[in-house]
This record gives sequence, C-alpha cells and structure tokens, in this order.
Amino acid sequence: MWYNVINGVSITFEPEGKKIKTPIGTTILRAAEEAGVGIRSECGGVGSCGKCRVIVRNSNTVNRVTEIERKHLSHLEIDNGYRLACQTKILRNVIVEIPSESRLVTLKIQVLGLERIVKLNPSVRKFHLLLPKPTLCDITPDLERLLDTLSKQVQKAGDLEINYEILKELPFVLRDANWDVTVTIWNNHRIIAVEPGDTTSDLFGFAIDIGTSKIVGHLVDLTSGKTVAVGSIENPQIIHGEDVITRITFAATNNANLEMLQRLVIDGINKVLHETCKSARVNQSKVYEAVAVGNTAMHHFLLAIQPKYTALSPYVPALKRHLNVKARELNININPSGIVTVPPIIAGFVGGDAIADVLATGICVSNELSLLVDIGTNTEIFVGNSEDLLSCSCASGPAFEGMHIKHGMKAFAGAIERVSISSNFDVAYETIGSEKPTGLCGSAMIDAVAEMFKRGIINSQGRFNRQIGTPRLRENNGEIEFVIAWRHETGTGKEITVTQKDIREIQLAKAAIYAGCSILMKRKNVREKELDRVLVAGAFGNYVNPENAKVLGLLPDIPVEKMKFVGNTAIAGAKMMLLSQDVRKEADTISRKVRYLELATDPSFNVEFFKATFIPHKNLNRFPLVKSVLRSFRNVQI
Amino acid sequence: MWYNVINGVSITFEPEGKKIKTPIGTTILRAAEEAGVGIRSECGGVGSCGKCRVIVRNSNTVNRVTEIERKHLSHLEIDNGYRLACQTKILRNVIVEIPSESRLVTLKIQVLGLERIVKLNPSVRKFHLLLPKPTLCDITPDLERLLDTLSKQVQKAGDLEINYEILKELPFVLRDANWDVTVTIWNNHRIIAVEPGDTTSDLFGFAIDIGTSKIVGHLVDLTSGKTVAVGSIENPQIIHGEDVITRITFAATNNANLEMLQRLVIDGINKVLHETCKSARVNQSKVYEAVAVGNTAMHHFLLAIQPKYTALSPYVPALKRHLNVKARELNININPSGIVTVPPIIAGFVGGDAIADVLATGICVSNELSLLVDIGTNTEIFVGNSEDLLSCSCASGPAFEGMHIKHGMKAFAGAIERVSISSNFDVAYETIGSEKPTGLCGSAMIDAVAEMFKRGIINSQGRFNRQIGTPRLRENNGEIEFVIAWRHETGTGKEITVTQKDIREIQLAKAAIYAGCSILMKRKNVREKELDRVLVAGAFGNYVNPENAKVLGLLPDIPVEKMKFVGNTAIAGAKMMLLSQDVRKEADTISRKVRYLELATDPSFNVEFFKATFIPHKNLNRFPLVKSVLRSFRNVQI
Repeated sequence: MWYNVINGVSITFEPEGKKIKTPIGTTILRAAEEAGVGIRSECGGVGSCGKCRVIVRNSNTVNRVTEIERKHLSHLEIDNGYRLACQTKILRNVIVEIPSESRLVTLKIQVLGLERIVKLNPSVRKFHLLLPKPTLCDITPDLERLLDTLSKQVQKAGDLEINYEILKELPFVLRDANWDVTVTIWNNHRIIAVEPGDTTSDLFGFAIDIGTSKIVGHLVDLTSGKTVAVGSIENPQIIHGEDVITRITFAATNNANLEMLQRLVIDGINKVLHETCKSARVNQSKVYEAVAVGNTAMHHFLLAIQPKYTALSPYVPALKRHLNVKARELNININPSGIVTVPPIIAGFVGGDAIADVLATGICVSNELSLLVDIGTNTEIFVGNSEDLLSCSCASGPAFEGMHIKHGMKAFAGAIERVSISSNFDVAYETIGSEKPTGLCGSAMIDAVAEMFKRGIINSQGRFNRQIGTPRLRENNGEIEFVIAWRHETGTGKEITVTQKDIREIQLAKAAIYAGCSILMKRKNVREKELDRVLVAGAFGNYVNPENAKVLGLLPDIPVEKMKFVGNTAIAGAKMMLLSQDVRKEADTISRKVRYLELATDPSFNVEFFKATFIPHKNLNRFPLVKSVLRSFRNVQI
Repeated sequence: MWYNVINGVSITFEPEGKKIKTPIGTTILRAAEEAGVGIRSECGGVGSCGKCRVIVRNSNTVNRVTEIERKHLSHLEIDNGYRLACQTKILRNVIVEIPSESRLVTLKIQVLGLERIVKLNPSVRKFHLLLPKPTLCDITPDLERLLDTLSKQVQKAGDLEINYEILKELPFVLRDANWDVTVTIWNNHRIIAVEPGDTTSDLFGFAIDIGTSKIVGHLVDLTSGKTVAVGSIENPQIIHGEDVITRITFAATNNANLEMLQRLVIDGINKVLHETCKSARVNQSKVYEAVAVGNTAMHHFLLAIQPKYTALSPYVPALKRHLNVKARELNININPSGIVTVPPIIAGFVGGDAIADVLATGICVSNELSLLVDIGTNTEIFVGNSEDLLSCSCASGPAFEGMHIKHGMKAFAGAIERVSISSNFDVAYETIGSEKPTGLCGSAMIDAVAEMFKRGIINSQGRFNRQIGTPRLRENNGEIEFVIAWRHETGTGKEITVTQKDIREIQLAKAAIYAGCSILMKRKNVREKELDRVLVAGAFGNYVNPENAKVLGLLPDIPVEKMKFVGNTAIAGAKMMLLSQDVRKEADTISRKVRYLELATDPSFNVEFFKATFIPHKNLNRFPLVKSVLRSFRNVQI
C-alpha cells in the first residue's frame, strides 16, 4: 500500500490501451481527462447526467457502486461492470473500457491538406424533460417546475435566463405537450426554445462565410458534427459595388443605404439557408445558431453598423469582440429565438474571416513558423506561430477572382485553371470539369503570366516582347494580347486572351500581396528560409502551381514543398466555431492577442510595392530559388 | 506595539464619534464597513473611482499617501489631510472625518408610522467619460475604446455587455460628442445608454403599483433617492371587469383579449409616466428603469402571459422569479433601452405587490411577530417574523374600496371617512378635505357598521332592528336603510345611507379577511395575544378607527395600540426596489422563503368564513377585548 500511496495506481483505458499513473482515490472521469481520453459528461461530473458510463473489468479495483449510480444504471448493467466514471474512484491498478456511446465525439475538420481535431461541444444543447403535473399540493409555477426538472440534468438550472417570448408561450406549450417537452439551452445560460415531445435529435447550426463576392453556407447537424448540406450565392450587395470601398462609400451616404446593404446580405444568407435546409429536409426552426464570418466591412454591413470610419484614417472599426444577436433582431430565418454569433475581428481590414482562417489552419497553436495569406479582393496576411502572430491587410483588388481581367472568371466549371506554354509558344491548358474553356480563373492567370515571362513573351516589367514570332501575340483594337485558346477551342466561340492591361492588373495585385508579406516578415524579423510553411487560402482555384506563384513574385521564395494551397478556410473556421465552444474561446484569444500592423503607417510600403510590381521582383536576389529555375529558360527577359 | 498587534487599534469616525477596534493594517474603508459607517465607493475599493475621500486628522496614524491617491487628490487636499479610505491603512489609533460628499446616501422610506432605512444603490448608474481620440498609432475600436476608459471607474468593464441598438449608434455618438460621453450601466453588467456630454445628474426611475382598480406611479431621482412627482389613474382595464376573475375570464377567451388587457394597463402606465415627467420637467428618455408591482393577475396581464391557469385549480402561475424586460419590448415609454423590472411573486394570488408590502413594512427582517393584512379586492395576509413567514390570499371583494356599496366611493375628497353614532342615534361624520359629503369610503363603512351594531341598530347577524325609534332608519323602495347624512347636508343633494345589502357586502368582505387571518394564525400556531403588531395596508382611507375595525370583526382582537394602518405599502416597496439592489435581493429571498397556504385546500375555511359573517363573530369569546367594550353599550344585540 505504501508503494501505491506514493506512486499512485495505474489506469488503462481500453480499447486504445492508453495507460497513466494517478493518485489513489482519483475518479475515472478525472483520470480520463488527464490522459486526454474523452468521456462524455454533461453535468460536469456531479452524477446527474448519467452520460459517463464506463465498464470496469474488476470491481475490486474501485469503490462500491453508489446510490447515485443505481439511479442511472440497471441491475443488469451493474452486474456487467457498468459504472459512472464521475462516481467511481480508483483504488488499485484498473482496466476501464469506454463504450462508444460514452466517448466524446471529436471531429476532423478538413482543410485541403490540413486537418484540425475539434471536440463536439456546440453552444446549443437540448434536454428532453418529463415534468410532474401540478396539483393542489404542488403549485410550483410553470417556469420553476421546468427548471426544477432540468436541474437533474443541468448544473445551476435555476440560474438560467429565459427569453421573454418563450416565457409568454410557456403555459400553453407545457399543457399542450402534456408536460413532455424538450428544452434548448444556448451558451449554458439561456433557454431559447421549449418544444413539445422529444426533439433532441433535431439540432442544427449554420456556418456562413460572407465574402465580398460570394456568400457560402454550410448546414451542420450539431448532434453528430456532420455537414448535411452546403450552398452558395453571389453576394447580392454586388449591385452597389464590386469592392468593399465602393460599398462603404455607398453606405456612408445615409442610413437608408446602410440598411439596404444589410437587407441585401441578409436576403442572400436567407436564400442559402433556405436552399440548404430544403435539400437536407431540415425545418429552419430547428436551426438554433448561425456563425457568420466576413471581413470587417461585411461584418459591419451584416450588423448595420456604419463602416465608414473603417475606411477613413485612422481606420477604426466599431467593435472588436464577438457579438451574439438574436436571429429575430437580424431577420435571419433560423429559429427566431436562435442566436447569430458574429466572431470577433482583429482590425479594420482583418475581420472574422481572417480569424476563421487562423483557426482552420491552426497556425495559432502550431510551433511551426507559418506565413498565411488569404488572397481575395482584400488580402489578409499572418506571420508567426503559437507564441506570437503579426497580421496585416492589403487591398489587392479582385484580379485573382477574375474581375477587371478581360477574359477573367471565377473558379467555376469551364474556367481554365492551369496553363503551360512551351518553348515554341504552344499553349496547353486544363479546365475545371474538363469542359470547353469559357475564361481564365485566378490560378490560370498566375500560370499564364509566369509562363509568358519564362518564355520571354513578356519582360520583368510585364511588357510584351513584340519581337517573338508567334501568331498568338497580336494586336487587337490597338491593344496587344496573347491568345491562350483559339476560337474553335472555346465554349464561347471567341478567343480567350491575356491583354497587356490584364498583366498590369495581375502585377498590381501580386505586388500588393508580396509587399504586405515582405513588410510583415521584416517587422516580425523573419526571413524566407526560416519559414516552415506558407499557407495560401482564397477562391482562385485549388490547383495553383506553386512554382509559377513564386516566379510571378506573388509569394516569398521558399521551397515549393513548404507551400500549401488550402482553399476556403473561412467557412471551415466558421464551422469549427459552430461545433465547439472551446474554439470560440480560441477565437476571442486570437482577436485579443494577434498584433496588427497598419501598412498605411509603414513608410517603406510604397517603395516595396513598386519593386514588387516587377516579375518576380526588381531585386532578383530576393528570389534565389526562382533565379535558378529561370536559368533553364533561355528566353527570360530580366 | 505588541499590545496593538494583539488587540488591534481603534478608529473613530467623526462627526458621529463612532469608535471600533480593528487589526493593524486594515483600510479605513473596510473598518467603516465593519462599523456600519457608510462611505461611498463605486469601484469596490480598488482605488479607481476616487469617491471614498476622508480626512485623517494625524498623518502619523496611517500609511503614506500612495501614487493612486495622488491621481485623485490635489496637493492642497493632501496637505489638508484628505485621503482615499480604500488606500489608507490604519497603523495607530486614528480619528477620521467623513465629509458629507463621501457619505453613502441612505433614505428613510416612510410608510405611515413605519420607517425603513434603504441604502441608495440603484441598478442603473452613470459614468461620465472623456475618451482619447483614435490615431494611426491607437486604432482601438470604438467599443473597446469606451470600455478601456470606463475600466478606470468600473471593475471588469471589459466584461460588460452592450445592447445591439446602442452599439449600432456608437460610432456616430462618440464622434458627434467629440469623445465626451456619459455611459449608463444596468445591473453592473450591461450598457444601456451612451449619451453626449455629462448627463450624470439626469438619472431617474419610475415605481409603479398596478392595482386592480388604480395605477399609481412615483417618479424618483436616482441620484438623490427623492421622489420628484407622483401620479395615479384608474386602471383602464376596468372596462373589462371590476375584479380580476372577470378580467382573467376575458383574457382566457383568446390571445387578442389578453393583448388588449396588456395594452390597456401599459397605456395607463404611460399616462401616469407622462404626467409625472411633465410635472417634474423630466425627459422620459432619462428614466432608465421602472419597477412594476401588482397582484399575480396584473403581473401576467402586464407581461401578456396567459393568466387563466392561475384562476383554475391548482392555481399555478407561469413563473415566480423576477423578470427584467426591455422597455422597448413592453412599449413602456421610459428610455427604450431601459429596463422594466417585474419583481418576483409568491403564488397565484400573492403577487409582487404583496412582496412590496413585506419589504416596506420590514416584517421579514423584524423579530416582532407581525400580522400583515393588505386589504383590497383581493386581500393578502402574512403572519410571522424574520424567521418564517406564512402567507395566504382571500377574495374579499371591492366593498372596502367603495364598490357594490350604494353610496360607496373611493377615499377621495368629499368622502365621509369617519362616522360615529350617539346613543340617541344622532350621526356625526368627517369628510376628506372637509368638503360636503358625496359618499362613504371604506373606513366610514367600517365605522358605520360597527357603530350601528354598538347602538343596537343592527344585530350580530347584521339585521336592522326595526323596533328602534329614529327617522334615520326607514324603508326606501322596499329596502331598509339607515341615513348617515341628510339631503341638505350633502354635496349631491341626495341622502347618504347604508342599506341592508351594503351591510351584507361588508359582512362578506370582513368575514373572508378574518377567516383568512384566523386560519393562517392557526396554521402558524399563533394566538392573538402573541402578536406584537397588526399592520393593515390598503386604500380604504388612512383614518381607520382600530376599535371599530375590531368591533366589526375585521381584525383579530388585539390591543389597539398594537395596530397600525400603513396605507399603500406596495408603492413604497416598489420604490425601495428601485432605489436599492440589496432590496431586490431581499425580494428574491422573500419570494423563495415565504410559505404559501392555499385556503382552497383548507377544509375549515367554509366554517370559519360562516362564523365570521357575524358581528364581530359567532363566537364572541374570540373577542374578549371587544366583549368588554360592548358591555358599555347597553343596546348591543348579540
């Protein structure tokens, strides 16, 4: 015994076989937490929920079955070794089996090539209750009767708030349901629904990414963590401007304009919600929470908070921390008493979508030194690791999303997504869905410009070399352009070309992004070779050629194997926040801790930007890896 | 020094000269709390508010002036001995003077003959802030900028919630006010207003008593605790029934009826609010909180919660605990973001008004054994003391409020409020305001019936004795009546009489009240002679003759010097809750702890009620004091 007291006893968790030492008298639940073995517990270990059922192989190794356990376990179960982990104290070395129904559900959030594990722990929870009927000897009022019954499953049920509109209906709901109801609790402190019968299996959430150009929605079953439907729509605000600055200017004119922009984005959200619910056959009233991420302008538009001060020096947003608003107040058509959670932001141009990127990629919890670039009309950049993250934002324009490009388009079916040009100027390309090409998406523009540079069709300033002999380089209405696909190859019956102006747009966009990365890294005192990885998020297609991205000078010159193109991480991060209260706390921490660099205050920005308009850069020594690649292309014009 | 360490040091508070012993190193603030000397402190003693200024006579007796104090005190003040009580530690015996501006405001709540001291500590508080303007080097968002500045005056300001509708206006308000604003915080956790400039002196609250027949409102200055205006109006719901049961039946028919009753009572409240604000020249938007008490039916009507189940066995209300609803949601015209607080109730027929009675009379904190009777259409009764209180309710009808009485009226000017009858049947009376009489209020009816009994005009069953010789006793349209005032004396030109039916109404009303008292005392095992006091609240006039109330058999037979008629305690209690968060907590405790007796479940009620219809009672031995009084009246017909 002496030995045991000092050194503790061992507990082995089956089926995984994980084993740890723990002091005598520790409960199995506590030991499991220490071992990182997830066991369900809704009551926090006070013995009231009965969810933490485990099987103890040898009953001599633990304390006797308690009265509390007898309430939750049948005789047969007790005979078969079932115990509640929170009530069972370890006395000797013990082997414990955790049945699948008692395991905490954990989820793998997939972000192209990355994966984060999230514990299923949503803000909304449901409890099925059978209330005792009132009698002359038990005149407890309706609400207190409900809370009393609930207190058997939930700690401090008596302190729960209840929405006034739910309370008003309570006397009817309870009696119509014959005192058999399901209660929905939000954030452990407020009752947001009381429904007749057992509806515990109908519990859904909605993750929303409000992009400047596209609204994406994922409908999630919060009992399993599974995504049951996805949908998207063009952001209807686009009629008031393609870019955020135009929309902010429109909103700044008067409140009616601001409210119109709010109405448009909410209409868009409601359409995606309606579609996804319809396709998954989910009643919209069973969606109790929505998490909506977006850049700071979208964030302000969604809440109808005047965003004009975010666009005027010193670029101050109205708030930073997360906000929970009743769905009813925003007219978002989930359950009217449901909650719309708007995650925190970092600064005027680094919004909740960027926080979602950080969450989804996990750069905030990794020891690896990462550079994260979310390329969009506005590009957010992060550099750092779990110790410290520095962020900035730059206006890169919508060129990589296909806008302001003569034959540009989004990454839809028919878009050319890869381009290569041979030494004799022949062009090979691939389209999304292998359809006849109808335009060029962002990744194709990166390829096209980089390939033209490598073949000497353009020089490092982006100018066409009119000396090369190919019919693909031609003049059209006074403008020079390069033909990627001939008329007979395309789905439109027209040639798909890259013009001098298109190249200029790409140069400006990539220069802004590179200058942002470069200044941010300088401020963080990080060199290219010190970076463990570069993660690129964005909507320009999933098959970006990393070498061409470097040749173009879009990204710092690091080995291609360290680069990852991770797609839409914003929606993945929003979904993680929907699934887990812990992730939300992480988001709050990120919002507080990530430092923000205002590029407008950086005196070197203009010079950096100008140098970066060259392909790949005015100073080729910054791109030693690219330089060696370029050596193999004899026509390069530096 | 040894002596001091063990026995502590003394501190004397001037000007009152209060002296206590305390350990060395105790702060003056802590010592003052122990001594029960109220010193202002808004920051909880962390040195951030600067309100706890005191004068130390000898600087050697305390620690040196700290850096924190230098921020709040001028050089001149420090030279004059000014210190912050929370920062000043007592080292030797010390004398401390508390200037009037540092004293906690305490208020005496007057309830006819009773008085409770309430510490001014309202739920709404204001803070004037000067925010630093944002610059490119300080891009803190608007909300966080506000909270940062606020945190210098308020603990945990960063955790404060803010109403969404306030947040939406925040960017404009801050800039329009040139960053000079006043913030209003409710209940230490939510920002409900941000106003330009310094508006700290404009802070009002509204106490409301929703009676079945009358709505009373008091407008209170929450910076001083003073009542600045009072008003009242007939409850507009009266068009749907004089008594609560009629109204509940109306509301039970459909939701539209329920909502109509809600609209009516809220219209009434808004009229009283408008009048009182107008007369005190207070802008309604500067009223940030309302506390509304009423019986359980009024409580449900106000909230538009269906009350029918409170009127059907087993008489279960929808909720018991207090509720805070935004003024906007109820359409009560105080500041739209202000809060309407509806105090807790005890049971289906013992509402928030009864809790207010208990608070105002202080029977819940007194060691004296009290019987509290709040007489109205519905009468609530309490018996007990600080250890335990038992309550019940009985339907006494509106006779004492002048209804169902031929010449009955409320206690307005012109109402006869006292009546005496001489041995030769002459009648003397007094009217309110000494005007010509226009009717009889409740106290006059008590007098009239008791006096008629004492003079043998009626017998113990309430029947007129037609044998007595006076023209005042006469037949009128087949009904016998007794003339109190002759035609030429009255303001109406008609005789004011008491009819046989009037007497019957009074008998039924008083029987219900007495039976309630009697059963409640029996259940609590309290006899008449054990009662330390009987407190009678209600609207039947302030000058009730206690002996006549006993002769009538309205109240138990205890010495008249133990009886107190305390007027409208419900509004006094509501005002106390408005003035003090501590009183609200007391209300919650009362709601939880006071036991409720459902008279409907008491098998002896009907018998007790029948016996009590006699004057004073079928069993005269229950009224030994009355019996000896009656001996002096030779005509008494028992």
